[in-house]
Amino acid sequence: MPIYTAPTRDTRFVVNELLDLPSYGNLPGFEHATPDMIDTVINEAGKFCSEVLAPLNKSGDEEGCTRHEDGSVTTPKGFKEAFGQYRESGWGTISSPEEFGGQGMPHVLGFVIEEFMATSNQAFAMYPGLTTGAISALIAKGSQEQKEKYLPNMIAGEWLGTMNLTEPHCGTDLGMIRTKAEPNGDGSYSITGTKIFISAGEHDLTDNIIHLVLAKTPGAPDSTKGISLFVVPKVLVNDDGSLGDRNPVTCGSIEHKMGIHANSTCVLNYDGAKGWMVGEENKGLAAMFIMMNAARLGVGIQGYAQAEVAYQNAVAYALDRRQGRALTGPAEPEAKADPIFVHPDVRRMLMDGKAFSEGMRALCLWGALQVDLTHKAETEEERAAADQMIGLLTPVIKGYGTDKGYDVATNMQQVFGGHGYVEEWGMSQFVRDARIAMIYEGTNGVQAMDLCGRKLASKGGAAIQAFFKMVGDEIAAAKSDETLAPMAEQLEKALAQHQAATMWFMNNAMQNPNHLGAGAHHYMHIMGIVTLGFFWLKMAKVAKDALAGSPEDPAFYEAKIATARYYMDRFLPDAGALRRKLETGADSMMALGEEAFQTAA
Amino acid sequence: MPIYTAPTRDTRFVVNELLDLPSYGNLPGFEHATPDMIDTVINEAGKFCSEVLAPLNKSGDEEGCTRHEDGSVTTPKGFKEAFGQYRESGWGTISSPEEFGGQGMPHVLGFVIEEFMATSNQAFAMYPGLTTGAISALIAKGSQEQKEKYLPNMIAGEWLGTMNLTEPHCGTDLGMIRTKAEPNGDGSYSITGTKIFISAGEHDLTDNIIHLVLAKTPGAPDSTKGISLFVVPKVLVNDDGSLGDRNPVTCGSIEHKMGIHANSTCVLNYDGAKGWMVGEENKGLAAMFIMMNAARLGVGIQGYAQAEVAYQNAVAYALDRRQGRALTGPAEPEAKADPIFVHPDVRRMLMDGKAFSEGMRALCLWGALQVDLTHKAETEEERAAADQMIGLLTPVIKGYGTDKGYDVATNMQQVFGGHGYVEEWGMSQFVRDARIAMIYEGTNGVQAMDLCGRKLASKGGAAIQAFFKMVGDEIAAAKSDETLAPMAEQLEKALAQHQAATMWFMNNAMQNPNHLGAGAHHYMHIMGIVTLGFFWLKMAKVAKDALAGSPEDPAFYEAKIATARYYMDRFLPDAGALRRKLETGADSMMALGEEAFQTAA
Repeated sequence: MPIYTAPTRDTRFVVNELLDLPSYGNLPGFEHATPDMIDTVINEAGKFCSEVLAPLNKSGDEEGCTRHEDGSVTTPKGFKEAFGQYRESGWGTISSPEEFGGQGMPHVLGFVIEEFMATSNQAFAMYPGLTTGAISALIAKGSQEQKEKYLPNMIAGEWLGTMNLTEPHCGTDLGMIRTKAEPNGDGSYSITGTKIFISAGEHDLTDNIIHLVLAKTPGAPDSTKGISLFVVPKVLVNDDGSLGDRNPVTCGSIEHKMGIHANSTCVLNYDGAKGWMVGEENKGLAAMFIMMNAARLGVGIQGYAQAEVAYQNAVAYALDRRQGRALTGPAEPEAKADPIFVHPDVRRMLMDGKAFSEGMRALCLWGALQVDLTHKAETEEERAAADQMIGLLTPVIKGYGTDKGYDVATNMQQVFGGHGYVEEWGMSQFVRDARIAMIYEGTNGVQAMDLCGRKLASKGGAAIQAFFKMVGDEIAAAKSDETLAPMAEQLEKALAQHQAATMWFMNNAMQNPNHLGAGAHHYMHIMGIVTLGFFWLKMAKVAKDALAGSPEDPAFYEAKIATARYYMDRFLPDAGALRRKLETGADSMMALGEEAFQTAA
Repeated sequence: MPIYTAPTRDTRFVVNELLDLPSYGNLPGFEHATPDMIDTVINEAGKFCSEVLAPLNKSGDEEGCTRHEDGSVTTPKGFKEAFGQYRESGWGTISSPEEFGGQGMPHVLGFVIEEFMATSNQAFAMYPGLTTGAISALIAKGSQEQKEKYLPNMIAGEWLGTMNLTEPHCGTDLGMIRTKAEPNGDGSYSITGTKIFISAGEHDLTDNIIHLVLAKTPGAPDSTKGISLFVVPKVLVNDDGSLGDRNPVTCGSIEHKMGIHANSTCVLNYDGAKGWMVGEENKGLAAMFIMMNAARLGVGIQGYAQAEVAYQNAVAYALDRRQGRALTGPAEPEAKADPIFVHPDVRRMLMDGKAFSEGMRALCLWGALQVDLTHKAETEEERAAADQMIGLLTPVIKGYGTDKGYDVATNMQQVFGGHGYVEEWGMSQFVRDARIAMIYEGTNGVQAMDLCGRKLASKGGAAIQAFFKMVGDEIAAAKSDETLAPMAEQLEKALAQHQAATMWFMNNAMQNPNHLGAGAHHYMHIMGIVTLGFFWLKMAKVAKDALAGSPEDPAFYEAKIATARYYMDRFLPDAGALRRKLETGADSMMALGEEAFQTAA
């Protein structure tokens, strides 16, 4: 049985020491996040996820979801009870607005819970996880009536939500959707069409499911400018809040997937289901992006979540499994062989896992703080700066985080040798589950184009310049410190690669936009590498300062500095190679026509 | 249903034009490989694999193998009939010695068949595939009696073979095996113990299975110096060649694996099974390496095989699926969207697949030629040179080929977006099947240490110097050619990185062997990158020469040159980054003790 321990010590380090969350007590909602409350949330969420969700991860994968003839779906054994505990503990309410029954605490703490849930049981985490996006869209674009009707129950976990975008013939290109919304004349619409890949589209966890659905009104433009968003409850809600008639939206089938078996991925058939428009007509794409951005950060968490749990299991295996001898001579001469932990190649994989997961945790929780500051910072300038930064980094968190997270999970499976390939040990599941995160909520190719085609250029490159300044300032400050200076110099070189790649785009993408497309994926990775390097430099600084104060657990801080060194040694060099690839442009990539790709007999 | 077309045109290019196989007609066995025979083998093998094996790949994955209460195992529907066709067509006999009923043709042609089989149906290919290793060991180390008893039926495909190395507590470190071989006093031994992960350990394809088993005789040294090899038939073979009693070797269970579901991976229990020693007592490891080396090349083929079939399917999907518009403006304005083939990021993934698979095909078939030359070249010097080169490159073919092959297969799955994650489309299977190749026959970490700890240093580095000379000569010759010179210069830079990494090992590994272990994986990848670059430069040259002769299909040769350019642009730059990582050595990698890896609460 795979293990999972919530990394509460490291989380406290990030929340309290790196981000210094308690220092934001002047901002609305943050006053609830007292040091005691932070500790309680981290520890209790860790306990719930380790003790309740983790034990259901493997059994959920094995059993999967079951669709019955009437279209109803049963989640795996134990999921309904676990969800009941989740709801009763109020985990879903932490960072939701108090106005609708939430606790109004910082998103940082909501993200902590999201991480622990995604790590202990990704398929489970997706049930409330997608609801978060639906809640965000309703808060931003819903009418007051819609908010009051749906949000309290969604936040309380009485009802769950979904996001209905994809159709059989279109996913990325939502301008092509065919689902129709005909006005009924009473303010409601009649929704007809087929949506696919709807995560948590049907299940037995809650009495109602609130679907947010993209559809087209009659005569709407035949492009993304003709999409509207609708709220379509599975069961209609009466004016007194009680449940009314079943709406004709049904699960036609559930997909057989590579992983996340315990989450029901549905084909949903809308046969004149009653829905209500959210926000303005033909402005559905903007509302959709609100859901999407929330979801993309959540998927970024999933990227390192599977890496983290796979890492924990690989460490345990590497310390237990004995095979061969250390290259420097037997480490435990009295035993028949040394633990494989002594082998540098095993250590390489484990250090990769440690450096990646801890780095991503720092980045994602910092990202959550930016989400908070976007809404709550004191000045408009601070709010705009936070919004700009998290907008820029969202595709990096999602795209780089999940690409690399999958790599790390794969390497953690590698530590197990043949045992890693056997389902019994659970490592295969981590890899299979991690795989989806590179695909959904916009494939990583789409993330790369969001970054390079949209975010880089916006406002004359203001966001990327702010990013360069943030990283550059950290490097400059670190250079005067004996411990940090060598790392700062390594990061400076990677930053120079990042800047050079940006400049190359500026000089070449106008002339041929394919040059941008041909380098976007590499650019996203360069930026991911530099961003984690920035956080490792920051963490090393915090650790060094902490060590000066003779902390209780110096080993924890020493390990931070050692891991930062490893990160600089082994992650940063890729930035240069990626930059060189990027600078070869689109010519050799686009040289061949389709005939050249056909297998010739 | 996934597609597969045997790439017979490209295979003919490699065999006839790159390797110029017909020019070796003076060597024993090669005289059978006339141009006509080469064409026939390639075309007929391609037909068999496309038409018979490929259609069973997905159904085999879905059904898997079934173990019955009596320990017998049934392969998926259609496998037994397909294996009957394989046997009757004599595909297994192509490159086996004529003395035992084989056709004695070059291994190059045997490898062609192996590729097509592994690509169309890896799980199926493994049944005869492991037999190849067992045959090699019997040919090299068996007594004349053993050879006559087993080889004709194994070569004919009447019986299949297995390799029994791994035990529950040991895989890589075979010195720890516990399986015992007690002499019976009549020349036979009584074998007792448990072997795990035995591919094709039990099945219904043949009446008998010839197990080659590592075990220890009483009083044998407690290390790899105490291992002996035994041949243990599932059914004892009478002196007249008829089948006798069932030997007590039984399948205790079959593993539930991430992939290759249609191959039965068995726990085999030996309860005093009768076996006969192969070769000398306590010299089993050497015999095992003969099996292993054959198997490792076969696994290298699997690495690109899954990449190749995934690539073919990704190409078809990219041309069919329409989403969005080309960055340079609509490619097909009359349609609602362009095929995703127009997007540079999709093209990047497809070009990676094309450049990798075609490069690996050239490398592996050239490797097969070296295997042939090892035995059959005219002079001792040529034989030794071929043996040295294939010995050096075997871990690269296996380790780099399967690491990168898995990456490519994963990216081909990515081309499908959400559809790639759904089992229905078959892309998940290609990735799941590809995953094992990085693990079995020695994990890729073991390959890296075989390369760096053993092969690099042997005979004062003679092998790697010969490799550098081979690549350097190709570069030097290409530099005088206008078309090839830019590519040669790019390759020259990567070669310099390779040489620098080698030098760094020479200067540092003696002082601390962990420096070698810490860089071995990266070194293996650098060498893989340079090796494929060498083959792309060679292929570009052959293509250019062919174009000068106004060939029938100039587009084929033009695509070779264009793909070579892409390879140089997008694969070679990693060599520099890997070298820089390698040169950071073991210090930051090995800095932390085991406590630092434990998740702290």
